[in-house]
Amino acid sequence: MNINPAQISSHNESQLPDHKEKFDFLANQLTRSNIDVDSLIKKVQNLQIEVPSWALGTGGTRFGRFAGGGEPGNLIQKIEDVGVLNTLSRACDSISLHIPWDIPSDANAIKQELKTKGLTINSVNSNTFQDQPGQKKSYKFGSLCHTDKGVRKQAVDHNIEVIEYGKMLDANVLTVWLADGSSFPGQMDFRTAYSNTLSSLEDIYDKIPSGWQMLLEYKPFEPAFYHTVIPDWGTSYSMVTALGNKANTLVDLGHHLPNTNIEQIVATLQLLNKLGGFHFNDSKYADDDISVGSIKPYALFLIFLELVKGEQTNMEPAWMIDASHNLKDPLEDLLQSLQNIHLNYAKALTVDLNELKDTQESNEVAQCQEILQNAFQLDLRPLVAEARLRAGGALHPLSAFKDLKVRENLIRERGTSTVATGL
Amino acid sequence: MNINPAQISSHNESQLPDHKEKFDFLANQLTRSNIDVDSLIKKVQNLQIEVPSWALGTGGTRFGRFAGGGEPGNLIQKIEDVGVLNTLSRACDSISLHIPWDIPSDANAIKQELKTKGLTINSVNSNTFQDQPGQKKSYKFGSLCHTDKGVRKQAVDHNIEVIEYGKMLDANVLTVWLADGSSFPGQMDFRTAYSNTLSSLEDIYDKIPSGWQMLLEYKPFEPAFYHTVIPDWGTSYSMVTALGNKANTLVDLGHHLPNTNIEQIVATLQLLNKLGGFHFNDSKYADDDISVGSIKPYALFLIFLELVKGEQTNMEPAWMIDASHNLKDPLEDLLQSLQNIHLNYAKALTVDLNELKDTQESNEVAQCQEILQNAFQLDLRPLVAEARLRAGGALHPLSAFKDLKVRENLIRERGTSTVATGL
Amino acid sequence: MNINPAQISSHNESQLPDHKEKFDFLANQLTRSNIDVDSLIKKVQNLQIEVPSWALGTGGTRFGRFAGGGEPGNLIQKIEDVGVLNTLSRACDSISLHIPWDIPSDANAIKQELKTKGLTINSVNSNTFQDQPGQKKSYKFGSLCHTDKGVRKQAVDHNIEVIEYGKMLDANVLTVWLADGSSFPGQMDFRTAYSNTLSSLEDIYDKIPSGWQMLLEYKPFEPAFYHTVIPDWGTSYSMVTALGNKANTLVDLGHHLPNTNIEQIVATLQLLNKLGGFHFNDSKYADDDISVGSIKPYALFLIFLELVKGEQTNMEPAWMIDASHNLKDPLEDLLQSLQNIHLNYAKALTVDLNELKDTQESNEVAQCQEILQNAFQLDLRPLVAEARLRAGGALHPLSAFKDLKVRENLIRERGTSTVATGL
Amino acid sequence: MNINPAQISSHNESQLPDHKEKFDFLANQLTRSNIDVDSLIKKVQNLQIEVPSWALGTGGTRFGRFAGGGEPGNLIQKIEDVGVLNTLSRACDSISLHIPWDIPSDANAIKQELKTKGLTINSVNSNTFQDQPGQKKSYKFGSLCHTDKGVRKQAVDHNIEVIEYGKMLDANVLTVWLADGSSFPGQMDFRTAYSNTLSSLEDIYDKIPSGWQMLLEYKPFEPAFYHTVIPDWGTSYSMVTALGNKANTLVDLGHHLPNTNIEQIVATLQLLNKLGGFHFNDSKYADDDISVGSIKPYALFLIFLELVKGEQTNMEPAWMIDASHNLKDPLEDLLQSLQNIHLNYAKALTVDLNELKDTQESNEVAQCQEILQNAFQLDLRPLVAEARLRAGGALHPLSAFKDLKVRENLIRERGTSTVATGL
Repeated sequence: MNINPAQISSHNESQLPDHKEKFDFLANQLTRSNIDVDSLIKKVQNLQIEVPSWALGTGGTRFGRFAGGGEPGNLIQKIEDVGVLNTLSRACDSISLHIPWDIPSDANAIKQELKTKGLTINSVNSNTFQDQPGQKKSYKFGSLCHTDKGVRKQAVDHNIEVIEYGKMLDANVLTVWLADGSSFPGQMDFRTAYSNTLSSLEDIYDKIPSGWQMLLEYKPFEPAFYHTVIPDWGTSYSMVTALGNKANTLVDLGHHLPNTNIEQIVATLQLLNKLGGFHFNDSKYADDDISVGSIKPYALFLIFLELVKGEQTNMEPAWMIDASHNLKDPLEDLLQSLQNIHLNYAKALTVDLNELKDTQESNEVAQCQEILQNAFQLDLRPLVAEARLRAGGALHPLSAFKDLKVRENLIRERGTSTVATGL
Repeated sequence: MNINPAQISSHNESQLPDHKEKFDFLANQLTRSNIDVDSLIKKVQNLQIEVPSWALGTGGTRFGRFAGGGEPGNLIQKIEDVGVLNTLSRACDSISLHIPWDIPSDANAIKQELKTKGLTINSVNSNTFQDQPGQKKSYKFGSLCHTDKGVRKQAVDHNIEVIEYGKMLDANVLTVWLADGSSFPGQMDFRTAYSNTLSSLEDIYDKIPSGWQMLLEYKPFEPAFYHTVIPDWGTSYSMVTALGNKANTLVDLGHHLPNTNIEQIVATLQLLNKLGGFHFNDSKYADDDISVGSIKPYALFLIFLELVKGEQTNMEPAWMIDASHNLKDPLEDLLQSLQNIHLNYAKALTVDLNELKDTQESNEVAQCQEILQNAFQLDLRPLVAEARLRAGGALHPLSAFKDLKVRENLIRERGTSTVATGL
Repeated sequence: MNINPAQISSHNESQLPDHKEKFDFLANQLTRSNIDVDSLIKKVQNLQIEVPSWALGTGGTRFGRFAGGGEPGNLIQKIEDVGVLNTLSRACDSISLHIPWDIPSDANAIKQELKTKGLTINSVNSNTFQDQPGQKKSYKFGSLCHTDKGVRKQAVDHNIEVIEYGKMLDANVLTVWLADGSSFPGQMDFRTAYSNTLSSLEDIYDKIPSGWQMLLEYKPFEPAFYHTVIPDWGTSYSMVTALGNKANTLVDLGHHLPNTNIEQIVATLQLLNKLGGFHFNDSKYADDDISVGSIKPYALFLIFLELVKGEQTNMEPAWMIDASHNLKDPLEDLLQSLQNIHLNYAKALTVDLNELKDTQESNEVAQCQEILQNAFQLDLRPLVAEARLRAGGALHPLSAFKDLKVRENLIRERGTSTVATGL
Repeated sequence: MNINPAQISSHNESQLPDHKEKFDFLANQLTRSNIDVDSLIKKVQNLQIEVPSWALGTGGTRFGRFAGGGEPGNLIQKIEDVGVLNTLSRACDSISLHIPWDIPSDANAIKQELKTKGLTINSVNSNTFQDQPGQKKSYKFGSLCHTDKGVRKQAVDHNIEVIEYGKMLDANVLTVWLADGSSFPGQMDFRTAYSNTLSSLEDIYDKIPSGWQMLLEYKPFEPAFYHTVIPDWGTSYSMVTALGNKANTLVDLGHHLPNTNIEQIVATLQLLNKLGGFHFNDSKYADDDISVGSIKPYALFLIFLELVKGEQTNMEPAWMIDASHNLKDPLEDLLQSLQNIHLNYAKALTVDLNELKDTQESNEVAQCQEILQNAFQLDLRPLVAEARLRAGGALHPLSAFKDLKVRENLIRERGTSTVATGL
């Protein structure tokens, strides 16, 4: 399914007068506060978030899965879906692949399709947390950490194969998330698991092409229930430091113990020059993988404030959403997530960092809080809408999605029983 | 120290044009969304939050205390401070007393002072978590739950004495927070502690005057480190149900285990007709007792949404801030807390409950989220400022506090080494 | 597969001298401490734990499933497996069914098989957290709480059908665990969900036969990620109280927020006469569903101490294991769980409750801790082994399981690719 | 107060026959399992835990303090108390000082007293979390991280002064715990705080004498309620790595977010050669600072298992208890803590590491758990008692403490209103 510019324009038209009134008032207010509105809009437009192929379909939980219809059944259809999202939102010009779920049988056709849709592939993801049909050795007891050298080699080879697919499609990031760990005290020796993993990662790192980076995620639990080999940023940091400059840490918002101050981890990794990428989502309890900003929007704003501070460095993290859609339409959910990302990024950009710094220097605690909360209280929806409008997108992507009957069209084209992921 | 209307007017004057422009634009927008702005403003004005006497001074932690200056040294001065807060914010027309820290030696003088300041006393708080000089029996091992009948009686008598003080000052709420509990497995028998506590509460309940309510707090830990006698809402609920209609549960936002869904507890207690009161504060880790809305403003909004839904019932909870100010000026902190309470209450009031209900009925999950987040994204600061303005308060209480040099004046009057609380 | 008494005897024989030496020494020590060893052994023998049919196969996580071999493919085979477990451990003389996974097509044959194996069925479990093929209405947005009356009725009818199956098989407990809840703020109205659920439960309760009880579980999250309709014991308690005497609360050890004091909940529910049943498992992070006692054995002991204290009441909770075996052989895991249950129950039984009470009364805190820890430090493995021995079981069930090559036999009989559950 | 060998012997005498019977049986059992009992006993005897001076008096909470009597009022009396503990337990031959609470006015007298009691001082602790009377600049907004260079210098100078006191008394460890952090988003810039802290630590590190180590603690919260400058092991690790070989990380068991796998952190720090020291205590909720092993004894065992594995390295961590005694007699509490440390260390030593390794290599998950739990189930109290007996200590230190009426004697000597700490 394609959405053409005329459809977008037509959808925007009726909302334009109301939008214009709100945006003009807001722009005027911001300008009086010495904020360069055009520059702010450009920065928002430049924040492009990668959409992972697996987020385009209905996710499941341990207990059940309630599929929707019209899900993409192959890579071409997944690219089509991200195309729709990007046409509406102008916020996601790339798609992340998951191997083996998205093995490109015809790389040229894929590249052509990407070009047509104005998309790229930045990152490729390996999968050593499931056994695939016909796989020689099982990952039941781990992959890169496994006590059996043969399993480790198989997992290393898989990662190298993923790099090869990525090279075919002009990607430049390999993301490694490991389910490796143990569920019972005594099951694994922590040190052996760490050493085996690091050694396997070194073998993969050797194959990382120049200009690429390898991102190493961490996660405290699930699916391992007692220990994971890379549970926290410190462990990932110690490993990527050992690996070299092309290896960096990836922060997934859902991969932390209760009450963790994530924005501080972001700042620390930036200071240590090891923040390589970001997986956006939100959660209340564990790795809930729900819509970005749906539970803790202020925490999202605080994270963006650190990312904005970090923009002065020359490292650009890889941005991605990582979510699982059990109850919502996956595309609706992604549109909401993209909106919350742009909204909170824009709010963070309005903070006068010099004023903040001065207030911090003099320890005027209440005033420091005022500065942040005043930025957060701003209603910047008209500004984010204007950024989309200027880029050719929809003023209200979610409304457009419904008005244009995207899901109904997809169901008509694809049927009601396709399955998007390997989960 | 007194702030007179002329000072407020003079402070507001220079900000009025800017305020008027913003408020008019906002009011116009809200009106178009079928929101009755004047009625909204009146509701905000009517939400009056009690300030506890102990929040007027610098709090400490287990590790240290860094006092500020100009703290109120007696009850008259505490009333004076709340008077200042209310003059600026028009949001806190009552003060809560803590016995024995605030024993009124001359009740008539206190009542006269309250009247002069336009304040009342709603609630009185007992203290059985410390030993006072000259006290016969120690609360080291509990008070209402104590294994020694004599200690229990002493604690019951203290609560009855607190009711007497409350009657003198026209209060109508007794708030009971118990530190009772144990720090080691085996130290206490859960059942005995529960039964002793309930029995003691019955003795106090017998003395609750008609027209009063007794509020029973719960808290999972601290200062007890293994078990508290009333750890959760369920335990408090089971007790207040056994006590009778005048006994209800009080929810303190900081008294929950990690990740608790507090808004659901609020809704459940309302449904069960047992939500009696509310202690506002915020926290990231434990009972941090920091400024309302400083960490999780969206959670605060969600709680207010439930309270707004509950307004249709005829029970009016007792509202209070319960905070501890270790780093900020206590009065600045309270002004920020009051602002965040009014702001999120106002946002909750803009939700169209019928539309929400319909959307919930049809399980349009993404749209349900839209409704809430659209209300939360509204910048209602001009509306809350207008509510204050119309009530005679300051457009920006915190700025006024600084411009009028309130703290400097208080230090001049009271010195730098007064201590406000018994902690 | 059957294990006959001769195989057990033969296995025990070589270990008997060593066992006897240890047991005699232990028994002598216990006797000197005024503990009646024979009575202790009888109590341990009487603690029979139900095994749920779904724990007999390999469980999965959200990310993958690594099946083992020889899993039971139908109800007869599940009964066979529990027969093996009980023959070895003499600790689990009943099996719990899950409908629709275990619909008995021929009730008489099932009853005959149960009789042959010396087993019974105590509890039956309904399933409204998945959609079954051919099901008319979906549980995607809830079951007993659903906004659509038709879905609620379908879920009520399913529960009534489960009761009917239970009656055929002489069960006397209906266990209700609901996945009902919401994953996003705003998705559900807490009060409506509560009321709908309670109303549906009332319809089911009406069909609970005399002599039965209906158990209502609670769980804070998963698969719902923002709110569950029955998140905590307080909510379950408020509902079972409204329902009547045949409705009680079930405590699943994994269904609590971080740091919850579960033993206190057990004691409180007993005091309130509403503790109806127990699901044993262990966890470090969330509802990890791992082997009983594998992470927090002391907490398990403390829970048993409360259960022992509660034995003086006339209510006997329904005991069950509820676990998911991702990495271990399910039968090995269950044998370990049964061992840890018996071990900690036995330790709890050695506590002199009168001495404990006296020490608590006099607030000798250090000594209270001594009493509990001295009981916990006791090595009661020989006593638990003796209890099994006298009942005809194996001294070391896990060793026997391996020596008798149970799994190898099951694989030979059933193959390597059977699947035990509907998950 | 002194306890002489004759008193100990006399106390032990009556218990000797019972002890001997139990120990002989146990030793026989262990020997059959190929455990060298004498060597095990020697290892237990060699594990000497430092007692911090501040743990000798009653601690308080944020809410109140219930002092006991006979507390040590000066450094000589504190040494006396540790002497009593060591005479009874033979497990704590050193005392850790806290400056400025324990400034040695006469170093020679202190050294003489230490020698008399057979004690040493290993570590000295700085305090920049409180303001001392007469102090020039306040630590209200931080110390080593402070935005004001003058405050940072004051804090650095204090640490250097602490080193000087340590040198006088032959210590060789400086322990740095910082309360530095912020309580509100925006209050501090994470990066500036990190950089300032590291820079200050470098200035201190320059003065660390040869043969010493500097230990850097981490803690996620309290007294700071939003962020602490060194919240987790990763941050401490990144700093001590930057500092040099004499800087290492200290693990305090209570300084972790809920559900943290601490034993893994211990193993990782050992692998990275940066585990410098250990603060033992236990907790259920936060930094509860309660008796070692009183809540999670199995976790303590698992930590010791890692420490035992790490013994093969040449680094010996500094062992210390860090606890706060609100309800128990401090000396009774310390005796219980020392007992639990020795007990779990001994259990960990009985694990056959080669067998464990082999079982892990073959991924026999259930058997791995068996190995650990079989060690944990052993009742090694007779062995730990024998270790004490052979070293001249009491078979049952806590009973001896009571029988010898230690507290009563201390109260007689010192009165009932001394205060041991500066908290």
